[in-house]
Order: sequence, then C-alpha cells, then structure tokens
Amino acid sequence: MISSILSGDRAFIARAISMIENEDPEINDIMSKLYSKTGNAFVIGITGPPGTGKSTLINQLISSFRKLNKKVGVIAIDPSSPISGGSLLGDRLRMQDHGSDSGVYIRSMASGNRSGGLAKATRRSISVLDASGFDVIIVESVGAGQSEVDILKITDTVVIVLMPELGDDIQMYKAGLMEIGDIFVINKSDLKGSDKMYTRLLAYIGSNENNNWSPNVIQTISTDGTGISNLLKSILARKEFITNSLNHPSYKKNKIKNQILDIMIESLKTSFLQEVNNDINLDSLVDTVYKNEIDPEQAAAVLKTKLDS
Amino acid sequence: MISSILSGDRAFIARAISMIENEDPEINDIMSKLYSKTGNAFVIGITGPPGTGKSTLINQLISSFRKLNKKVGVIAIDPSSPISGGSLLGDRLRMQDHGSDSGVYIRSMASGNRSGGLAKATRRSISVLDASGFDVIIVESVGAGQSEVDILKITDTVVIVLMPELGDDIQMYKAGLMEIGDIFVINKSDLKGSDKMYTRLLAYIGSNENNNWSPNVIQTISTDGTGISNLLKSILARKEFITNSLNHPSYKKNKIKNQILDIMIESLKTSFLQEVNNDINLDSLVDTVYKNEIDPEQAAAVLKTKLDS
Repeated sequence: MISSILSGDRAFIARAISMIENEDPEINDIMSKLYSKTGNAFVIGITGPPGTGKSTLINQLISSFRKLNKKVGVIAIDPSSPISGGSLLGDRLRMQDHGSDSGVYIRSMASGNRSGGLAKATRRSISVLDASGFDVIIVESVGAGQSEVDILKITDTVVIVLMPELGDDIQMYKAGLMEIGDIFVINKSDLKGSDKMYTRLLAYIGSNENNNWSPNVIQTISTDGTGISNLLKSILARKEFITNSLNHPSYKKNKIKNQILDIMIESLKTSFLQEVNNDINLDSLVDTVYKNEIDPEQAAAVLKTKLDS
Repeated sequence: MISSILSGDRAFIARAISMIENEDPEINDIMSKLYSKTGNAFVIGITGPPGTGKSTLINQLISSFRKLNKKVGVIAIDPSSPISGGSLLGDRLRMQDHGSDSGVYIRSMASGNRSGGLAKATRRSISVLDASGFDVIIVESVGAGQSEVDILKITDTVVIVLMPELGDDIQMYKAGLMEIGDIFVINKSDLKGSDKMYTRLLAYIGSNENNNWSPNVIQTISTDGTGISNLLKSILARKEFITNSLNHPSYKKNKIKNQILDIMIESLKTSFLQEVNNDINLDSLVDTVYKNEIDPEQAAAVLKTKLDS
C-alpha cells in the first residue's frame, strides 16, 4: 500500500484518505511510514463566505498550475449539510474541467462534527497527496468555524476570497480569519464597490504583516479569468518568500510545533471526557449548581481537584 | 456592587460586564454571589449568515416583548473586524428604536480571539442580566465559529435566521449549526424561493427532533413586521415547552453539566499550554519531526509520556 501511494496510484490514495476519515487504526502505521516522503508540496488554503465564487476560482487555479506542469490535489472540506439537496464542493469542482486529467486529484472530506479531528484528517490527507507526488495541494473550506482556522494554519498560504456588495456584515463575519489571510481576493470585481473594498483592504493590510509578508489584494472575475494570472503570481511569490526569504527551517518548525500542540490538546480533551464518563459521577456537583449553591466556575474548580487527586 | 446590580442599576451592570470582558479577578467573587439570583430569564440565541436581517428582526422582537411588558437584555457578540469601518451589531441595534427605553439593555461583546473564553464571558454576562431582572435575554452572534455553537448551547432556544436566494452554499455554510436550531426563520420571505426553502426546511426538520421539540419554520419580513407575531408565538411556545413539557430539572441539569465540562476543557487547555511554555522543551521533539524521523502524531505521543511522568 505504501509503495502504491508513493507511486501515485489513485485507488490507493483514495483508500488511504477513506481510512483517515474513518479513523481506521491501521492508518497510523501507514502515516508514520509515509511521513518521511512528505514536505515537497506547496499547500494553499482557500476560504471565504458563501457565494463568493470559490469553486470557479479554484477551477481556474487548477488550470493555471496544470499549464505550469504541476500536479494538483484538492481537498474540499464539505460541511455536507443535511438541508442542501444540491451539489457539494468537491462534486462541483469535479464536474468542471478536470475530471479526466490524471494530474488532478479532487477529494471531498465531510466535516461531520469532528472539530479537532477534522484538522487532523486534513493534515493527514495532505501528507498522503504530498507523498504521492502532488506539487500543489489546495484545501478549500467554507465556514467550518474554529476548525477552519485550525485547518488553515496547516497550509503554507491562506487565500481569503471576498466579493463586493456584501455589506459590512460580511467583513465582520470572519474577523478571526482576516488576521490569518496572506492573499485577499476580491472576486466578482466587476460588481459595484470593488475598488472601495480594494482600498479598504489595502488600508487594513498596512497594519497587518504576518512574519514580514505583506498580504496582497487581488481583484478577479473568476468566470472569465480576469486577474487569475495576478493571483497565480501572488501565490508563487508567497511560495518563493516562504522557501527563500523566510528563515525556512524556523518557519517549518514553528508549524510543526503548533501541530504537535493541537494534537495534544485534542487528545487531552478526549481523555478528559472519557475519564468523566467512566469514573466521575458529576451528578452531585451538578445538583449543587442547580440549587444555586455554587456557580459553574466553582463546580469546575471542585471537579479539577477531584481529577488531580 | 452586588445590590446595585440586583436592583438593575445600568451603570453597575455595564461595569460588571466590562470586568467579565477584561477577566478582572474581582469578578469571580461577584459572579458566585450573583449566581444564586439567576435562573429566571429566558435566553434566546439568534444566529444566521450575514445579510439575512438579524438586527432588524431582533429590533422587532424587542418591541414585541416590550409590549408584553418584559424587560429585554441583548448581548451582541461582535466579531469587531478591523476592516469594517461601518457600524457594529450592538450599535446598529442601539441606533434603532430602543435607545431611551429603560426596559431594554443592549451590549456589544467583542469576540476577540477568545474561543472558549467567549462562551464563558457570554454565560457570565447572561447571569448578570438575569440577576438584575431582565426577563428575556437575546444573544446575537454572527459566524463566530465553533465558539458560536458553544455560545448557542448556553441558550434556551436557538433561532436560526436564513433567507431565500442564498443558494446551496448558504445551507452548507453552517451545517454544524443547523442541527441545534429550535426555530428557523426565513426572513426576507418576499424574495423568490421562500416557499421552496420553507418546504425543504420542513422536510429536513421532520427527521430532526431535539428532545421531543419539533423545530418550527417561520417566514418573516422583518422590515415591515410580517410574521413577527408568529415568531413571537413560536418563541413563547418553546418557553412553555421547556418550562412545562420537558423534564425541566433534568433539562437544566444537563445544561449545567455541559457548562462545567466546557469550563474544565478550556482550563485544561490553558494549563497544558502554560506547562509546555514553562517546563517542557519541545525543540528536540520538533527537530525529529522536522527531519521526518517521526510524524506529528508520534511526537504528540512522546510529549504525552513526558507530561505524564
């Protein structure tokens, strides 16, 4: 299986990612063996509010990278709403131009309810695609919440796709995300308000450097390809910056450190909840709070001493 | 200060909430003293994608509750984007009809980057308003991510505001939220597609009961008040349901239990990160991952044994 993945066999890539999604215990060993073959891919995270045209934009980017002869993997984090009867992110991409191109691999990943687990599954899927020779890996996510920020922290560059005419609301909507954007795209820039938004973003970015990288703002119209070459240039500049201008080892090591800490926090949380479920009877503690004798913070402090003892 | 808050003194309410936001150590004692006076308010969480008209809808709801002679507190969780030069949630509400009504208290709360801390600050601010005699407390949030779900879990009823014409994208955007909705509002229901969305939501809800409560779907036009009386009825029915039809103590106790666990998880996370910062040198572990000798999961396992020893 390892050698099939390393040779880029799509069936085995798909199988590995399914094992990751299902948390199949056998995947742990596979991952640790694949890990030494990773580190070559450039990972792009793309996010933005609904309706901004992310799928079309990604479709254009795939074409651009293919023209540079780069193999492109896409992981579309899919909230898989029970309401939507419509097409899902990955499908939407697949249905477009790249379905038969062996240099393109597109995979949906259901977000489910696994907040920390989703970042882990994404990280591992990136490693699988990385090890199997994809040069560029695009991770698309749409409003997956805090886990979205966790996922984007894994990537090498974060592209945030906005559009004009969304009102102030839309800028407010993802305040936590704006801080981690490396490249801002104003898509549908033929709509009214694009230039005003451009000016605003530039003003904002002036005060917002990430490790000496000044975020770019690019105006695009993804449906006709306007601005895509600028976006590609910006992504390549970011790649160049990370590889050469930054202290590359320390950049990488900092990412690794954060990954280890994220994994640990998730694992602490899981074992705490298990411990509470198996060993600790919370009922009497809950009762005292219910009777307003202590508040939830005090109850948590009591629980802490129980756990420590 | 306690007695001023209990008597509903707005200056002291404001001061207490500021202390909560700033994590002033003195607030802990105040909170534990206030806690015994809480439990009377009905807490409504309102969320939904940007642009769906939440502020106008809340404004209408405030008027409706005031006509019933209920005192209304509003906590608007405000992502406080550095980009938006425009008005913020709380301001937007305040600028409307209730600025001079002493039976209404509106407060913005900046979300900052405090994921777990935000739920805690919201919970405590609810307690302050509850103790000071507000009958209805509305918590508005907009896309604050995982913390949003944490915040909504605190409330007694979750109202999700949608609108027609948002495409499939919008339904996908908050898949994690849809499961916790008690009341779904299709606002701007004069727009095309409202009835189709209504049918879809009803079909979805058929399979989605929360503790024997079948979520309602209400069509509204908040700008002219259409459907607001239905929404109010639905909220009051939910209140009645929680108070009488549900096993009320067990409902409350379950909420308390989750609160205690959330507080503990946040505290575990904080102390873990402190411990790592102060006592554990991760550099060599990070180095082995950097050299691809082990993967981040294995490194986390090594770290775990270090912590346990």
